[in-house]
Amino acid sequence: MPELRYNILTREWVIIATERAKRPEDFAKKVKEKKVLPAYVKTCPFCPGNEAMTPPATYVVPDTSTWRVRVTPNKFAAVSYEGERKRNIVGIRRAITGVGIHEVIVETPDHSKTTALLSDREVETIIETYLNRFKFASKDARVEQITIFKNHGDAAGTSLEHPHSQMIATPVMTTQLRDRLFNALEHFDEFGECIFCRVLEQEQKEGLRLVLETEHFVAFLPFASLTPFSLLIMPRRHMACFAELNDAEVVDLARNLRCTLAKLYKGLADPDYNYVVRTAPMEYTGVKYYHWYVSIIPRLTKMAGFELGSGMFINTSLPEENASFLRGTQVD
Amino acid sequence: MPELRYNILTREWVIIATERAKRPEDFAKKVKEKKVLPAYVKTCPFCPGNEAMTPPATYVVPDTSTWRVRVTPNKFAAVSYEGERKRNIVGIRRAITGVGIHEVIVETPDHSKTTALLSDREVETIIETYLNRFKFASKDARVEQITIFKNHGDAAGTSLEHPHSQMIATPVMTTQLRDRLFNALEHFDEFGECIFCRVLEQEQKEGLRLVLETEHFVAFLPFASLTPFSLLIMPRRHMACFAELNDAEVVDLARNLRCTLAKLYKGLADPDYNYVVRTAPMEYTGVKYYHWYVSIIPRLTKMAGFELGSGMFINTSLPEENASFLRGTQVD
Repeated sequence: MPELRYNILTREWVIIATERAKRPEDFAKKVKEKKVLPAYVKTCPFCPGNEAMTPPATYVVPDTSTWRVRVTPNKFAAVSYEGERKRNIVGIRRAITGVGIHEVIVETPDHSKTTALLSDREVETIIETYLNRFKFASKDARVEQITIFKNHGDAAGTSLEHPHSQMIATPVMTTQLRDRLFNALEHFDEFGECIFCRVLEQEQKEGLRLVLETEHFVAFLPFASLTPFSLLIMPRRHMACFAELNDAEVVDLARNLRCTLAKLYKGLADPDYNYVVRTAPMEYTGVKYYHWYVSIIPRLTKMAGFELGSGMFINTSLPEENASFLRGTQVD
Repeated sequence: MPELRYNILTREWVIIATERAKRPEDFAKKVKEKKVLPAYVKTCPFCPGNEAMTPPATYVVPDTSTWRVRVTPNKFAAVSYEGERKRNIVGIRRAITGVGIHEVIVETPDHSKTTALLSDREVETIIETYLNRFKFASKDARVEQITIFKNHGDAAGTSLEHPHSQMIATPVMTTQLRDRLFNALEHFDEFGECIFCRVLEQEQKEGLRLVLETEHFVAFLPFASLTPFSLLIMPRRHMACFAELNDAEVVDLARNLRCTLAKLYKGLADPDYNYVVRTAPMEYTGVKYYHWYVSIIPRLTKMAGFELGSGMFINTSLPEENASFLRGTQVD
């Protein structure tokens, strides 16, 4: 019999469709022929030497010969860096000028790489860069929310294969974050605890859905995973905002993120995925009820009419089986 | 400059990315070679003569020789028709047995057809069938919400090409519907009006985003369309529940739905799409603050990390331009 499970962090129900359930290994990418990427591509705007193809860099981590990470404004920005934030409210209409910051973080000079194949040190530099850009964008008075995310592969919505992630800082807070902050606050009011800390404690106690525990972070599949293999990497220490990370935690997050992605890479044959830093804004630093984390969403299934039309997902896999599969997938 | 727009029905902001905006015709499906489907396929479980390949029908609209519409339980049901609804609440865990109803509505005996190419009368029969199954499922005490939807094409998540839609009746109300009911109730409390009626009135007054007006229904692109060409078909008469439809309205909805889909079919070269009946449950019949409608979502773009991670969409097209394009697309 299928089971409906409730995600207490997002207040969403999911159908765990046992009758349709697939084995973990059935989700592995069916690769007809493994595409081997070259280390350098002449037409790639993110390859070293081609810097003139992008707007001037806003941040660079230099290397002896070139750079290790390079940040530039997105050439096709979703929001405009120039301009004032102005609301336009007429009757039931609300609009705001589309101002904010939209940057591309080029993660490595090597076109052929992917996060799973980088070194821990390289991933550390990427996370340090995220922190720098997050703090920079937080100073902009027009900005209410900052989303750092990565699209890996075609199904995840990327058009450029050179490893990169993005940051979009928007002039409003999204309803999704507003609702989650509010839900967490309600839980705190009622139970006097951070619901995220509670979930993490519960997952560690049960152990069934754990993927990787490192010194400061725990990667696990939620009890009510919306989609196969979607997982969270949560800091053990309570922190509302991503920018509260200390140096030791940056090093450990790099290791956890890289190893978790390597487990997906190896176990599921380089699946397309998105990851995103889900955090409260900078001014929530120290808030007791919210807890930031990284969410990894392998794009193994498609959203169909039921998901779009009801907001409820059908997960055709068992989080416990998938977690066990990933735990057993050995990586360095 | 891009613009952020607010959807007052869903309380979601969307970025209308003017810098990246595409022309309406740029969204037309790039068809390398038009696949012509045969009218009958020996291995298709939904073709006439192959009825033994599905569970026994729960509802059939007969024809002189065979049937016009046929409903069967989904062979790979997301929820189980058998069993009791039981909650399991331990600590922060909430689960419910996955009971409910999951049916497939085979829309025509002709394998090669698609809704846009059916007759108004055929679409009428499909809608009458939806009403029958909606009323049937509403009688089930285990059911809290009923979602009727269609997946057309690969990008929309369908695996079977024979024209069909589905109904899933779940033992809980989804957070999405709960939130929308609550938002609408708040608006009613504050302004004494149905927010949906107000939006419809506004759209008719402005006219900029209208696609097709028929006697009882209006098809339009919302001011804050999340994705290119996503549109609503809303009844002019205030009705909270889909089952409140009268006979004349069924006839008119069939015409509006068929013509609107035909405009998409012709204008965008048979795009993949989902449609869904967004309705309050049966017991909300007569409620003054909610208003049901049909939502059509062409699957022309992919959700990437930003959309998943923030809940905010980037629409790379102008709803006004797309509506104008569809208004100008002539269909019978």
